[in-house]
Amino acid sequence: MGAELSYVLSKTQMLSTSDYASVVSMNIFVALLCACIVIGHLLEENRWISESITALLIGICTGVVILLLSRGKSSHLLVFSEDLFFIYLLPPIIFNAGFQVKKKQFFVNFMTIILFGAVGTLISCSIITFGVIQIFKRMGVGKTLEIGDYLAIGAIFAATDSVCTLQVLNQDETPLLYSLVFGEGVVNDATSVVLFNAIKSFDLNNIDHRIGLHFIGNFSYLFTASTLLGVLAGLVSAYIIKKLYIGRHSTDREVALMMLMAYLSYILAELWYLSGILTVFFCGIVMSHYTWHNVTESSRITTKHAFATLSFVLENFIFLYVGMDALDIEKWRFVSDRPKTSVAVSSVLLGLVLAGRAAFVFPLSFLSNLTKKSEREKLSFREQVIIWWAGLMRGAVSMALAYNQFTLSGHTEVRTNAIMISSTITVVLVSTMVFGLMTKPLIRFLIPVNPTPKHKNSTGNIDSSNNSPKSITVPFLGGGSQDSENELDGSEIHRPSSIRSLLSTPTHTVHRLWRKFDNSFMRPVFGGRGFVHIASTSPTSRNGNQQWQ
Amino acid sequence: MGAELSYVLSKTQMLSTSDYASVVSMNIFVALLCACIVIGHLLEENRWISESITALLIGICTGVVILLLSRGKSSHLLVFSEDLFFIYLLPPIIFNAGFQVKKKQFFVNFMTIILFGAVGTLISCSIITFGVIQIFKRMGVGKTLEIGDYLAIGAIFAATDSVCTLQVLNQDETPLLYSLVFGEGVVNDATSVVLFNAIKSFDLNNIDHRIGLHFIGNFSYLFTASTLLGVLAGLVSAYIIKKLYIGRHSTDREVALMMLMAYLSYILAELWYLSGILTVFFCGIVMSHYTWHNVTESSRITTKHAFATLSFVLENFIFLYVGMDALDIEKWRFVSDRPKTSVAVSSVLLGLVLAGRAAFVFPLSFLSNLTKKSEREKLSFREQVIIWWAGLMRGAVSMALAYNQFTLSGHTEVRTNAIMISSTITVVLVSTMVFGLMTKPLIRFLIPVNPTPKHKNSTGNIDSSNNSPKSITVPFLGGGSQDSENELDGSEIHRPSSIRSLLSTPTHTVHRLWRKFDNSFMRPVFGGRGFVHIASTSPTSRNGNQQWQ
Repeated sequence: MGAELSYVLSKTQMLSTSDYASVVSMNIFVALLCACIVIGHLLEENRWISESITALLIGICTGVVILLLSRGKSSHLLVFSEDLFFIYLLPPIIFNAGFQVKKKQFFVNFMTIILFGAVGTLISCSIITFGVIQIFKRMGVGKTLEIGDYLAIGAIFAATDSVCTLQVLNQDETPLLYSLVFGEGVVNDATSVVLFNAIKSFDLNNIDHRIGLHFIGNFSYLFTASTLLGVLAGLVSAYIIKKLYIGRHSTDREVALMMLMAYLSYILAELWYLSGILTVFFCGIVMSHYTWHNVTESSRITTKHAFATLSFVLENFIFLYVGMDALDIEKWRFVSDRPKTSVAVSSVLLGLVLAGRAAFVFPLSFLSNLTKKSEREKLSFREQVIIWWAGLMRGAVSMALAYNQFTLSGHTEVRTNAIMISSTITVVLVSTMVFGLMTKPLIRFLIPVNPTPKHKNSTGNIDSSNNSPKSITVPFLGGGSQDSENELDGSEIHRPSSIRSLLSTPTHTVHRLWRKFDNSFMRPVFGGRGFVHIASTSPTSRNGNQQWQ
Repeated sequence: MGAELSYVLSKTQMLSTSDYASVVSMNIFVALLCACIVIGHLLEENRWISESITALLIGICTGVVILLLSRGKSSHLLVFSEDLFFIYLLPPIIFNAGFQVKKKQFFVNFMTIILFGAVGTLISCSIITFGVIQIFKRMGVGKTLEIGDYLAIGAIFAATDSVCTLQVLNQDETPLLYSLVFGEGVVNDATSVVLFNAIKSFDLNNIDHRIGLHFIGNFSYLFTASTLLGVLAGLVSAYIIKKLYIGRHSTDREVALMMLMAYLSYILAELWYLSGILTVFFCGIVMSHYTWHNVTESSRITTKHAFATLSFVLENFIFLYVGMDALDIEKWRFVSDRPKTSVAVSSVLLGLVLAGRAAFVFPLSFLSNLTKKSEREKLSFREQVIIWWAGLMRGAVSMALAYNQFTLSGHTEVRTNAIMISSTITVVLVSTMVFGLMTKPLIRFLIPVNPTPKHKNSTGNIDSSNNSPKSITVPFLGGGSQDSENELDGSEIHRPSSIRSLLSTPTHTVHRLWRKFDNSFMRPVFGGRGFVHIASTSPTSRNGNQQWQ
């Protein structure tokens, strides 16, 4: 909140003139968000349209209406701002993703996820850069572009949209695919941003082998440091809440502390030039593993739903925002006299996105399959196709990076830059709408009604445990991260028969060792399931009045 | 969010230079908020210090540290901004107050609250204005002040700090006092803002009797329209959620819709130049009476705690912010060469605040007591003293109004204006710290350990009902607004013996008629306790997976 404060005040005079206009925009925007939610609810059972596409469509329609009302002068209520996106909108979404992710699936597939997210993004970026250089030269476009711009284009279009992915895949139906695609998305976001910043900061006129090494070193450092910071923030919050037993006086303090610590981890990462996205993602994971179990029952329900709601609203906000911004007349003015070029550039980029992703998904899946011993753990060709397809969408990260590279103060003055911006918007819209619309049916087609047995099994178990008499007393604790806890602990403790299958692969052995370590050293210090003073926390009803503040 | 978007983008270049500094400020600020929460927790059982005073002290200390580090150049990380305060910080706090207020107490005392909040504020404002004119003339201060400035000073110092009041009084221990003081605070906030805007817009050089009539008409219109808008927004949200049964697919949508509709009501009020504070307060009341009962159980817990947490964090934010801003060196520069004047002005203002409040609390309490038949409902002298004392604190509303009146673009260039700003800060600090510190002991002294029997009784009932076996299955629903529901419905339905006492006074008759109307017409349409398809909503555990999205 620091940033805008200083502006708002330093610009008080500007404010007073545009004050009423901004109140009007806010009204329309909030009303549209409400409309998105209601329409999203009504379309819930629709096979094709997801919430994000609804928001995008509503955004575009509003843009058209505004364009008509203002007689072609402007189409947007708000201007897309990189800072708003990276500082306020993205962190809660990624934190929530970490908080709700099925941890077992994520960690079992950790190596594959890193392979896809880091190596895959590099491959995709190289192919897009190389393709763009070759094709643009033949088309006679982009004479003003330098090598840095081409590399930036590679990074921009290698960034998948993890927000959209979250809405298309279902964690309960296809947990393996969800964790792979989404985990890849998070690592990919981080890689793209790191890559993009590296491209901007390195002197690209003197490329030699040192830059490659430097880049790899830089990336490893960022990845490790960001992860550690996130883990540390999560552990500190768990320790404070457990040690001070904050829920004794007030539920609100616990929730507030979790929220603030998570945000603190993000901005600390930004402060130290690390990847805030990775940090806040791992902070979410650690918080759901330790901190979440140290708070009172009502705090657990509140955090679970409040974080999910926040993330949900912000996702809708982003899509609405991208939809409205897409029609901004200024960006299309330069393009309008040569529409063919723009269409051609967009098509080339879309083609390269498809090719770039195919070029790493299938080979890397093959590599990943080599390390798996049992047949059931290998990625089938159908699953590989879904992974390829579900990562094709480009979203707000691409737009934010494109704005950063090709605009100066939000205005697109150079022709080539204008073409790049409008092409980015086209790629984002087409990929989200067309590819997004086709993802649900594609998954239904490739993996018919019942998901593969292994997935169905694990979800099936959780469903039935939700109906068991025991869960009636704690009906609110059956959701997302709790499920993952059930999977994580439950499979060993309550279902000994599955130990053998757990031990059948080396990844699972690591996982088992980690659990031993977790149970003997981590949980006694940082809390977690079964390691908190249950007698004093659970009877919320006893000292009710104080709890409710 | 509309406002800052346009700035952030239009100032991209400014941003890139000051970006790192603002990230540093945000880090410090969030870390300080965490510290406030932890320290507040540790001091919870302290008799003297409340959370707000802790935050204020931490803010001042940080200000001193920054002042020393920057060698006297600046003391604040953020500059106090009226817009930030009125657009982002205040609405969630007031909404939460409406959402959690004990509705029965509030409505039974409705006339007294309006009397104190509207008439009382006018009396207080007149006395302060008159006193300031007389005393400043004798002191030789404020030769540049016009009649409009004097009236504005009256409005500025008539605005009590409802946020601080919330923290000092306890809703469960002293429900009558809490509802009176807090209800008055909300109406007072609205009155002060309306009054202040009226003073700024009327031509004060030609005062005649028409202005008085015009003002009263204006105020009544604002009060009625704002209330109706809030009620309407609440009812619409209840209707949509009940009719579409949004919880069927996703808990998050319900919570998001409640949040967004509440905020929409606030900014709609701002759009139509109404009092957003009143609107959002009544929206909160209606939402807790209807909407809250139409949502799933997990949404109920989430909204209750999420709103309370948000409000809690924002309250801390405001106090931290005011504390840091208090030491801003620029404001004190003009004052430093004549410290005596500043001290004198501040003392005069503090004295007038004390006198102005005494001048309406005791006479109006007398009037209010005349309408009450039973002795137990009358306000005792001790209670009157507490009402007088608890409303003495001045806070962020006063500061925001003072900045609006006496600064141009955040800089205090005229000497008199600088003195007024620094005096406002002094009054805010002294009243919050000194009066605030003494409130808790004063209440303990005037109303010893056990509160008066009537209050204790009602809370006692709720406590015991929380321990009943029935409440074990729904242990999370025993808090704030649920309590008020118990009082409201429970007293008639489950405890028929108390009907007689309810009927003993005319206010209660109105209340009973309202309940009849509510049960026969309102609840069947808008839902509410006992009027929602319980069979389908309560077994959250059955279709668990979908609920948790």
